[in-house]
Amino acid sequence: MSSSDKRILVLNCGSSSLKYEVFLMPERRSLGKGLVERIGEAKGLISQKSPAGEIKEERPFPSHAEAMAAVGAALVDPRAGILKGLGEIDGVGHRVVHGGEEFASSVVIDEKVMAALERNVELAPLHNPANITGIREAERLLPGRSQAGVFDTAFHQTMPPAAYLYGLPRELYDKYRIRRYGFHGTSHRFVAGRALELLKRHPDNTNLITCHLGNGASITAIANGRSIDTSMGFTPLEGLIMGTRSGDLDPAILGFLEERGMSSKDISSLLNKKSGLLGLSGVSNDLRDVEAAAKAGNKNATEALEAYAHRARRYIGAYAAELVKLDAIVFTGGVGQYGVAMRERICHRLENIGIVMDYERNAANGGAEGVVSAPWSPVTILVVPTNEELQIAMDAFGLLFPQESAALRRRDADR
Amino acid sequence: MSSSDKRILVLNCGSSSLKYEVFLMPERRSLGKGLVERIGEAKGLISQKSPAGEIKEERPFPSHAEAMAAVGAALVDPRAGILKGLGEIDGVGHRVVHGGEEFASSVVIDEKVMAALERNVELAPLHNPANITGIREAERLLPGRSQAGVFDTAFHQTMPPAAYLYGLPRELYDKYRIRRYGFHGTSHRFVAGRALELLKRHPDNTNLITCHLGNGASITAIANGRSIDTSMGFTPLEGLIMGTRSGDLDPAILGFLEERGMSSKDISSLLNKKSGLLGLSGVSNDLRDVEAAAKAGNKNATEALEAYAHRARRYIGAYAAELVKLDAIVFTGGVGQYGVAMRERICHRLENIGIVMDYERNAANGGAEGVVSAPWSPVTILVVPTNEELQIAMDAFGLLFPQESAALRRRDADR
Repeated sequence: MSSSDKRILVLNCGSSSLKYEVFLMPERRSLGKGLVERIGEAKGLISQKSPAGEIKEERPFPSHAEAMAAVGAALVDPRAGILKGLGEIDGVGHRVVHGGEEFASSVVIDEKVMAALERNVELAPLHNPANITGIREAERLLPGRSQAGVFDTAFHQTMPPAAYLYGLPRELYDKYRIRRYGFHGTSHRFVAGRALELLKRHPDNTNLITCHLGNGASITAIANGRSIDTSMGFTPLEGLIMGTRSGDLDPAILGFLEERGMSSKDISSLLNKKSGLLGLSGVSNDLRDVEAAAKAGNKNATEALEAYAHRARRYIGAYAAELVKLDAIVFTGGVGQYGVAMRERICHRLENIGIVMDYERNAANGGAEGVVSAPWSPVTILVVPTNEELQIAMDAFGLLFPQESAALRRRDADR
Repeated sequence: MSSSDKRILVLNCGSSSLKYEVFLMPERRSLGKGLVERIGEAKGLISQKSPAGEIKEERPFPSHAEAMAAVGAALVDPRAGILKGLGEIDGVGHRVVHGGEEFASSVVIDEKVMAALERNVELAPLHNPANITGIREAERLLPGRSQAGVFDTAFHQTMPPAAYLYGLPRELYDKYRIRRYGFHGTSHRFVAGRALELLKRHPDNTNLITCHLGNGASITAIANGRSIDTSMGFTPLEGLIMGTRSGDLDPAILGFLEERGMSSKDISSLLNKKSGLLGLSGVSNDLRDVEAAAKAGNKNATEALEAYAHRARRYIGAYAAELVKLDAIVFTGGVGQYGVAMRERICHRLENIGIVMDYERNAANGGAEGVVSAPWSPVTILVVPTNEELQIAMDAFGLLFPQESAALRRRDADR
């Protein structure tokens, strides 16, 4: 191991969970990862996997402080730990959901950044407070270690006003910052970068549509390496039909439901937790269950799959029009990577916009990284497994260790 | 005038207005038209134009009954009337906003139809009651004359479930019939029909995208003569940025505004009456005013125009993808017909999906019926003035006088 090697702890702190992974950089190698679940509930769970072994322990974690202490202990567990001591950690990278308009790229966290995150709590009341707590707790666990923030929204800050403005009175943007932000930016950026490597193309002359289809799902139009439009909006509710989220709706439907006695809170829960594939099919938010039900003759399940694919096709077409030219479309996320039949449903008869899938190649590819378009397809169709944690580690390494990562970039360029 | 000639009175009865026009069929010739405004208000107005002269009279119309009586009098006004007597009217065609799922085409109105319209009041609480009143009043004015109903929604009933289902729990569709209905169907159908005539093509092998851009605006994908998707949804609020309507929004924005003290009614008024071009520009709901402000350097006005065009491009791209192949795109409505610069903004750099505008031809065409694409454009771009009233008259003539119109269709086919 050379002296330029650094160990980066990646933290993704949610309101009741704490995901973590340690990467050795610049090798981009995962040394192990873990998850604390049900923080604040009566029964918590910590689980960790690394080459040394597995940890799985059920006990309550009353707050994020206890969860972070447990992560510290698990990382250096004498039997199944990832590190010999916490001193091996050189820096920390945090996933932060909402950077608002203040962050167009990842940043080194300082008090100014923390103040900006606080200002954005209004925009992400569920997520940003947890992210802020995660940063504070990491400071306590690893005093003096520098930290980087990587935002779900940052990649989309290159969108032009035409794409990010809603058709609302301008003062709602000026006063409340109501606009399209987009999410999943770290994933879209990661798979776009990997797609360029696979295509052996430079970002500056390449246009992509990246489809992150997981339980949350969004599609992004990328022109010359920059996001120019994306399907999620002010919140992650807009856009595609997702596992349990409705995506696009006639806004008047909300008033119609209120008139029939639903509270604003009921409606929010309905749209976020009981809609999407789950709501339409009545079966499950998991694509595999819905596909099994459809195969068994459940008409609602079949129509749920068709509506899901139809919505994705709408966005792919919309972005193909916006992109002037389109070089490749990339599928990722649980559904995008493994949903062979759904990929086929989505790409079926998209030849009009130059997307020609090779169905056999698609089936044979399964969830691997690879090309699934016909050799003569004007637009290449790729499957690229996403790795948001690695992207966060890469960003943190670049920001916190600029000399080491610059040397690496020079080496890359010399190849 | 042959004995097969019929005079059709077309009525479009709104909650506070009553539009009418008399057509001579099968010539498709307008004999004159008029409008009663501000029904139920302190100051009403009736205006009428015909070759015989003009009528303009300000007086109160306490209800639709008085308004309809005034129409009857104006129609046969000895000085400036359209008819010698009301006996000359052979049939009536009504514009009806919401046919729900019960009407996939225009119908002869009978008590069964009236009962269905009543059932659909829930879906169009502002519009359908006025339409029903209009039918009842027309019966009183013209007893025994048969009437036809022409629905804004009917043309879109051919959409597949994938296009009309929202990502909501299925029971909301089953119980409340919450789905995409689409509107402006009469206009989309009219301009599609005229476009086929101009292109000398048969509907069965022609795919179109029709853009009805007026104060309300919607775009429709038409495959083989049938609507397969459209941008308005459960109500006319969804889709494009319009004169004062927001169109598509992240549904979570409504909850965000409620939390900041807006009532459901405030929000509905905001989205329907204060948004769109008006809200974004802060200038006007009239495209010409917004364009003038943009030219004078108003940045918000410029961004409003860009957002308006961007939204339209998204839908055109989405529908190009859905249509497998695309033959022509049709612009109509006040903005679509006369908004030369907006047409250019929308079609600019859509070459990727085969839409190549000839900007000089577009400018020279202005608001006339004509082709504005480059001769080598894979997709023909047309401007076609809409005429919903004429379409209603055509439908009513066909339904109420099947023998006369069948003879006409045979003559057409023999040409």
